[in-house]
Amino acid sequence: MSSSTTTPTTGQDGLWSVEEHLDDILATVRPLEPIELQLLDAQGCVLVEDVTVPVPLPPFDNSSMDGYAVRVADVEGASEEFPAVLRVVGDVAAGSGERVTVGAGQAARIMTGAPLPPGAEAVVPVEWTDGGLGEGPVTGMRAHSAAPEGASGEVQVHRPAEARAHVRARGSDVRAGDRALSAGTVLGPPQIALLAAIGRGTVKVRPRPRVVVMSTGSELVQPGEALAEGQIHDSNSFALTAAARDAGAIAYRVGAVGDDAETLRSTIEDQLIRADLVVTTGGVSVGAYDVVKEALTGVGDPDEESGIGAGGGMEFRKLAMQPGKPQGFGTIGPDHTPLLALPGNPVSSYVSFEVFVRPAIRMLMGLPEVKRTSARAELVCDKALGSPAGRRQFLRGSHDPGAGRVEPVGGPGSHLIAALAHANALIVIPEDTTSVEPGADVEVVLLG
Amino acid sequence: MSSSTTTPTTGQDGLWSVEEHLDDILATVRPLEPIELQLLDAQGCVLVEDVTVPVPLPPFDNSSMDGYAVRVADVEGASEEFPAVLRVVGDVAAGSGERVTVGAGQAARIMTGAPLPPGAEAVVPVEWTDGGLGEGPVTGMRAHSAAPEGASGEVQVHRPAEARAHVRARGSDVRAGDRALSAGTVLGPPQIALLAAIGRGTVKVRPRPRVVVMSTGSELVQPGEALAEGQIHDSNSFALTAAARDAGAIAYRVGAVGDDAETLRSTIEDQLIRADLVVTTGGVSVGAYDVVKEALTGVGDPDEESGIGAGGGMEFRKLAMQPGKPQGFGTIGPDHTPLLALPGNPVSSYVSFEVFVRPAIRMLMGLPEVKRTSARAELVCDKALGSPAGRRQFLRGSHDPGAGRVEPVGGPGSHLIAALAHANALIVIPEDTTSVEPGADVEVVLLG
Repeated sequence: MSSSTTTPTTGQDGLWSVEEHLDDILATVRPLEPIELQLLDAQGCVLVEDVTVPVPLPPFDNSSMDGYAVRVADVEGASEEFPAVLRVVGDVAAGSGERVTVGAGQAARIMTGAPLPPGAEAVVPVEWTDGGLGEGPVTGMRAHSAAPEGASGEVQVHRPAEARAHVRARGSDVRAGDRALSAGTVLGPPQIALLAAIGRGTVKVRPRPRVVVMSTGSELVQPGEALAEGQIHDSNSFALTAAARDAGAIAYRVGAVGDDAETLRSTIEDQLIRADLVVTTGGVSVGAYDVVKEALTGVGDPDEESGIGAGGGMEFRKLAMQPGKPQGFGTIGPDHTPLLALPGNPVSSYVSFEVFVRPAIRMLMGLPEVKRTSARAELVCDKALGSPAGRRQFLRGSHDPGAGRVEPVGGPGSHLIAALAHANALIVIPEDTTSVEPGADVEVVLLG
Repeated sequence: MSSSTTTPTTGQDGLWSVEEHLDDILATVRPLEPIELQLLDAQGCVLVEDVTVPVPLPPFDNSSMDGYAVRVADVEGASEEFPAVLRVVGDVAAGSGERVTVGAGQAARIMTGAPLPPGAEAVVPVEWTDGGLGEGPVTGMRAHSAAPEGASGEVQVHRPAEARAHVRARGSDVRAGDRALSAGTVLGPPQIALLAAIGRGTVKVRPRPRVVVMSTGSELVQPGEALAEGQIHDSNSFALTAAARDAGAIAYRVGAVGDDAETLRSTIEDQLIRADLVVTTGGVSVGAYDVVKEALTGVGDPDEESGIGAGGGMEFRKLAMQPGKPQGFGTIGPDHTPLLALPGNPVSSYVSFEVFVRPAIRMLMGLPEVKRTSARAELVCDKALGSPAGRRQFLRGSHDPGAGRVEPVGGPGSHLIAALAHANALIVIPEDTTSVEPGADVEVVLLG
C-alpha cells in the first residue's frame, strides 16, 4: 500500500463499505507485544499466559471462626447445662508463628484464618463457649492486649463439634497445579484478587496502547482562549483523547496543528516515539488545504528510508457512510505505526472514532471483543427518518434499554455537537434503507 | 457516635440489616467539595454548574463542503451542458483570516468550515464544477501548495444552488444563552467535546475521591514473596484498590499492616493527609487479635482533640448478611474522614466493598446513581440452594444477560476466591428465604 486515493474492489459508486474499511484496519493493527507488569498496573489488561496455582489455597488447614480448636471426643455431648471443660493451652493467632499442640482434654484459642494446631480436629466458635469467663455464653473474645489471661485457664464448651467443623481445608479453594486463569482473561478486581492470593506479584499482559491524538486546522483555537473572526475552538482533540482513554488506551492530546504540511509532518514524526497509534482529525477531504492528505502523501515510497515516510503507506478513501465519508488509514514511520486520519467535523470525527478507532485500540489490547454492544430498539419519532441511499447513516439517539426504545437526538448534521452530548447511542440506518418509519425496529450501538 | 459495638434499633437477632448499614454510611459520606479542573482532568466527574453557551455554535455562517461560494442568481439554470462560468476571486480557507468578497459573476473557492464570504449566498460542492480545469466534473481540488492557480481563473458550475445551500448557519448547533449542560451531568467524551467547542478550558466538578486501602493481619505476605508456615499472601489490598479505581476513585494501596494496634493507628494517621475515605480489611470480628477494632476504640472520645482519635467515632456491627457479617464504620481524625472497616476473608471483603464501599465512593463523587445495576434472572442449578434464615446471602454467579439466566459459581464459602474470579454477578438471596429452587427468579447484581 502506498499513498493514494484508491477505489474499492467490491463497493458501489466508488465508495468503500464500513466493513471493508474496518476489516482492513483490523487486519493491519496487531495486538501489542506482552510485557510483565506489576499486578495493579495490569488492571484492565489481557493476560497472555495461562496461570497455574503454585501452592494450594488455603495453603494450610485453618479456622473459619474465632473460637477454640478442640478434639471431637472431648466435646461429645456437650451442652450449656453439661459443658465440656477444657484446659486452654494457648492462642493460635493468624500469622503469629507460635506453635501449640492440642492434647486430650485441651483446647487452643484460635482466630479466623489461623492454622489448625496439631492434635485438634475441629473448631468451636467462641459464641458456643463461656470464653473462659465461667459465666455462660459470650459474644466474643476480649482483646489479647487487654486480657492476656484469655490464652490460658479453662473454657466451658456448650456444644459438640463434628470432625473438621469450622475448618477450611488446605486446597479447598484451589489446588496446586490447577489452572487459576487462562490466557485471554481480562484482569478486573476479582482476577487481581486471585492472582495476589496465589502469590503472583507480576503478570504477563498486553499493555495499554499509547494513542497520540491531534486535530488539524488553522481555524482551531484552544478552549479558554478568545476567538478571532473565522476561528472556532478545538474540540476534537479533547473528545477523542477522552474517548481513547475510555476505550482503555493511554492517550496523549497533542492539540491542534495548523494547515501546514511540513509542520504537521514534523509534529507527527516527533510523536512517533510515544505512539502505538496516531489519530488525526481534519484535512482528509477534497479541498485545497487538506493538510493530512498532503502531509502523508509519499509515505511508503520505497525511496524513503527513515522518518514517517518509511511506513507502509497511507490510503485515503471515501466510505459509504454518513457522517464520516472521507477516511485515511495506513502505517507510517520506521515501526510502521498505524495512523487513522478522521474527518474534521466534530460529529464525523466522533462517529468515526466509535466505528474505527475504538476497535483498533481494543485490537491493540488483545481484547476478545473489539466492537461496542449493539441492540435492537423501537424507533420513537414523529415522522419517518430519511437516509441517503447507499450510505450507512449513524444518527445520535437517546436509548432507553428498559423500554427497548430509541429516540433521535438532534438532526443528521455532522456539526451538531450539542445533540451528541445528549445521546447515549448511535442509531444505525443501513445502506439500502432510505426511510425509517416511526415504530420501526432499528439497530442501536450503545455508547456507555 | 462513639466507639462501641451497638445493637440495631430495628433489626432482629441483634443484627443490623444491609439497608440500615448502607443508609447510615450514605448519610455520613457527603459529596466532595467541587473544584475547577482542566477539561480532560474532569473526565468521569460530575458537573456542579449549569453551563451556558457564551457564543453561538457555529460562531459564523460556514461551508459544509469543499466547493465554491456563489450568488444564487449567477448559477440559476446551470448544467453540465450549459455551465455558469464564474471568475474565481480567491480562496477562503478555514482560519486563514484572508477576506474575499463575492460580487456578481464571481465565485470564491471555499473549504469546509470556512466562513461564507460577504456577497455569497450558497456553496456549490467542487464535484458540481470543473474545478477550474475546463475539463468536465472533478472529484476534488488540487492542493493549494502544489497548484496555487486554483484560487484564480474561471470555474464552470454545472448545477444551480438554492440560497443557503451547503451553508451551516451561525447558531444552528447551539445559540448563545442556551443551556449546554446541566449541573449533575457526568462528563464523558461527548460532553467534553461540547464544553471544548463552546470554549470552556476548565470546568467545575466534584473531584475523584482519594481512597486509601489497607489490609490487616500478621499472616499476610506480599505476593511474589515466599510464604513461611501459617502465612498467606495479601490479596485484599490489591483487589480493593483495583475495585476502588473501577468505581471511579484515585486509590492508594498501603498494603498489609500487622496485628499491632499502635502500628495500625499510626499508619492510618499518616495516611489521612491523602484520604477522602479509608478502607481496611480484617480485624473487625470477635477474636482476641482483631486489631482494627482495638486500634479504633477510643476514636470520638471527647478528650481526644487531635490525631485519628478526634473523629466522630467508629461503630462495629454485626449484619444480617453472608458473607460480610462483621462491619465497622465511622469517621476518624480532625476532618472526620470516613473509614469503612471490612471483614478480612477475601470474598467477604470483596462483597462488602460492592455493597458498601462502592456506593460510598460514588456518593463522594456526587454521582446520581450510587448502586450497581440489578436484574432478575432464572437460577440455573442442579439442586435447591440453601441460605441461612435471617441473612441476606450474596452468592457468586455467572450471568448470561441474553438468556436471562444465572448459574452459581463455586460454593458459599467466604474464602473461595477462585470462584469469585470466574463470576460476573452476585446472586442475592433475601433474608426470609432459606431455599431457592432451580428455575427460580432471583435478583442478580451485575458486576461489570
